[in-house]
Amino acid sequence: VPTTRVAVCQYAIDIDDPAGTLERLHASVAEAAESNPDVIVFPELCTSGYVFRDIAEAQSRAEPVDGPTVQLFRELSLKHHAIVVGGFCERSDGERPFNSAAVVENGEVLVVYRKTHLWDTEKRVFAVGDEPAPVVTTSVGQIAVMICYDAEFPEMVGSVARRGAQLVLAPSNWPSNSPPPGERAAEIAKAQAFAAVNRVFTVVADRVGTERGVDWIGGSIVCDVEGYPVAGPAEGKPVVLVADLDLDRALLKTVSANNDALADRRPNLYET
Amino acid sequence: VPTTRVAVCQYAIDIDDPAGTLERLHASVAEAAESNPDVIVFPELCTSGYVFRDIAEAQSRAEPVDGPTVQLFRELSLKHHAIVVGGFCERSDGERPFNSAAVVENGEVLVVYRKTHLWDTEKRVFAVGDEPAPVVTTSVGQIAVMICYDAEFPEMVGSVARRGAQLVLAPSNWPSNSPPPGERAAEIAKAQAFAAVNRVFTVVADRVGTERGVDWIGGSIVCDVEGYPVAGPAEGKPVVLVADLDLDRALLKTVSANNDALADRRPNLYET
Repeated sequence: VPTTRVAVCQYAIDIDDPAGTLERLHASVAEAAESNPDVIVFPELCTSGYVFRDIAEAQSRAEPVDGPTVQLFRELSLKHHAIVVGGFCERSDGERPFNSAAVVENGEVLVVYRKTHLWDTEKRVFAVGDEPAPVVTTSVGQIAVMICYDAEFPEMVGSVARRGAQLVLAPSNWPSNSPPPGERAAEIAKAQAFAAVNRVFTVVADRVGTERGVDWIGGSIVCDVEGYPVAGPAEGKPVVLVADLDLDRALLKTVSANNDALADRRPNLYET
Repeated sequence: VPTTRVAVCQYAIDIDDPAGTLERLHASVAEAAESNPDVIVFPELCTSGYVFRDIAEAQSRAEPVDGPTVQLFRELSLKHHAIVVGGFCERSDGERPFNSAAVVENGEVLVVYRKTHLWDTEKRVFAVGDEPAPVVTTSVGQIAVMICYDAEFPEMVGSVARRGAQLVLAPSNWPSNSPPPGERAAEIAKAQAFAAVNRVFTVVADRVGTERGVDWIGGSIVCDVEGYPVAGPAEGKPVVLVADLDLDRALLKTVSANNDALADRRPNLYET
């Protein structure tokens, strides 16, 4: 069975050290490249950092789609013959930038998505996207992209699954929390559950590195169509996760001899 | 803080041994009663058994709402001063019975729900329900009931949460499967995730006991509004789970200073 190799780059991001952040990104992708991945996934806001003080600071880090971050994705996609997906702070026509992610293949930008569910103080800094999460045709299959908190809404993952997504990529910055001893963060249970519910592969690319006092889960994970981890969950350290996925499995929604995960839905019963 | 004590009765059900099944139900509820629970939850089809050969056999075990199983729930609710919820095979006017669950308090039937997502061979035996999962007012708060596979659809749990459910009870019969070593069954991740997504308490009352060659997970669980287990997951053995829940926590959907789990949804983006 031909499989798709996905590499997740989880490294330390620091808004106050852009050069160091970029250095760690490059070290992570160099490590990933040793596995010859077909898909490389970076975190949300993977070059800028996340903990913006205000709109002005976010604007100062905002880039157009032809700016340095997406240009880097393009170069990496050519150099490593891989689809590259990651988050960046996207300049807008308005007062605030978008929290965006790009999907790049063979040096070309296939799609840019703007986060539609903003988390906490993001609401004070970013403009909110108003377009659904995209599903794009790539050389390995149908890939959907959404960003962090977006992927905590089961209907977001459901909507891309119904549009044919086989692989759902979620560049993320998961702020740390305190699960009970021995428990994985609830974010991880969600990634697993939504994979299983929709029989899609889900990938979260999280980050590490204390940033202006904020810590992060560092819980990157690759889930198979049954909701089980194929790689990760990572445990709060810099790491490259590598997983070989048979994306054709996501085309088949059969969950028993008489059940289909998507066809069994009864949307008219959910509206009340 | 006044809390609601929920007891989950996980015992061995055997379609070929109704008397033994009833005996084990009584032993389980007697054990539960020692904790003076406010709510007692039994599995799906908790007196009849599950592995019906055909429609005729299911019809032979079907009962009206005033039949022995719901009558037992009524007696137990009076005897133990508890809300009693469990599944039974409900006689219908048509050719096939329903896979139903009743919510009983103070000797009275508050609601009967008919399973709307039938699993595998249930499709050959049961009539499918066409009404949304109910949310009923009880002395402890707003309780929703759904049955097994129903609760694997995130939008089912979402729909009752939006109608004010604080406690979602899912009488279940989870057929066993084979999670990777060290992993909980994906069904458990779903129960956790959907609790967290909607900030409701979710309760699965599963069963044990090989029945006509079919084994069961026996993975009963009580999840808090953050998706973490408060009791269970049970590990495939007969057990009574007891959990004290502050149901008021489910009234507050705040997940950060600027986020609300339900208000943050963007349904128009999920339709595509």
